[in-house]
Amino acid sequence: RGRRLGRGGLVIVDEFGGQYEEGFEDVHTEIVNYFTYKATSTVLHQLYEMNPPAYTWLYNYVVVNDPKEGKHFLVALAKERQDLAERVMITRLHLYSKWIKKFDHAKMYEKISNENLEIMRQRLMETVAWPTDDTNTSDTAK
Amino acid sequence: RGRRLGRGGLVIVDEFGGQYEEGFEDVHTEIVNYFTYKATSTVLHQLYEMNPPAYTWLYNYVVVNDPKEGKHFLVALAKERQDLAERVMITRLHLYSKWIKKFDHAKMYEKISNENLEIMRQRLMETVAWPTDDTNTSDTAK
Repeated sequence: RGRRLGRGGLVIVDEFGGQYEEGFEDVHTEIVNYFTYKATSTVLHQLYEMNPPAYTWLYNYVVVNDPKEGKHFLVALAKERQDLAERVMITRLHLYSKWIKKFDHAKMYEKISNENLEIMRQRLMETVAWPTDDTNTSDTAK
Repeated sequence: RGRRLGRGGLVIVDEFGGQYEEGFEDVHTEIVNYFTYKATSTVLHQLYEMNPPAYTWLYNYVVVNDPKEGKHFLVALAKERQDLAERVMITRLHLYSKWIKKFDHAKMYEKISNENLEIMRQRLMETVAWPTDDTNTSDTAK
């Protein structure tokens, strides 16, 4: 549709007749995908202690299938091991509920704002003209 | 620290003396990184229309530097083009504010829950034993 993917799936807009869509559906998909990954990691941890054969199986599965693909990952996993897919699905919903109880919008805003400031401060420090070590180097060369 | 990274940075726990940490700092970093990426995409779009040389520069920069690296990406960008780094930083904070106003916890929970159900339903449909087309194939072979 006149769009192509750059590095990391970045959408580069090639078409400029239409307007730029400003939705957040992509953010939600990103979050769901991340919780799928986090849930898979949690299930792997539990299996390591409780069910080593299932751990080994899932570990090997994850080497070739990326949990960050979210729904796609789960659909494929359900075909191979429905029990494990169900477990990951239940876990991601559980983790999401836990997270949302703790999530603080204002703190997150502050976190981003502080990081922005920190990057600017760091940049400022770099642009200060410190005395260089070039003279020392030429001294040594003598 | 006894952990190693699997595909997609998945943390595989190798050490089981300690307990499993269940924090959400990783989720927050993921969200900030995603907004950095989304902001870069937005700035690219604006530059395309308003400042083609800057667009070309940033486009080429993004080909080799991944905006999803968030802070790391911005620190490096600030060294090259402080103006563009500032613009991406301001944009990510702005996008975050817009998003948080629309974000609905309950809807998101429902979205994950519905996706889980859909995957199970899909799996169920697949496991129903439909009459196969094998007989037709052998008929054709005759």
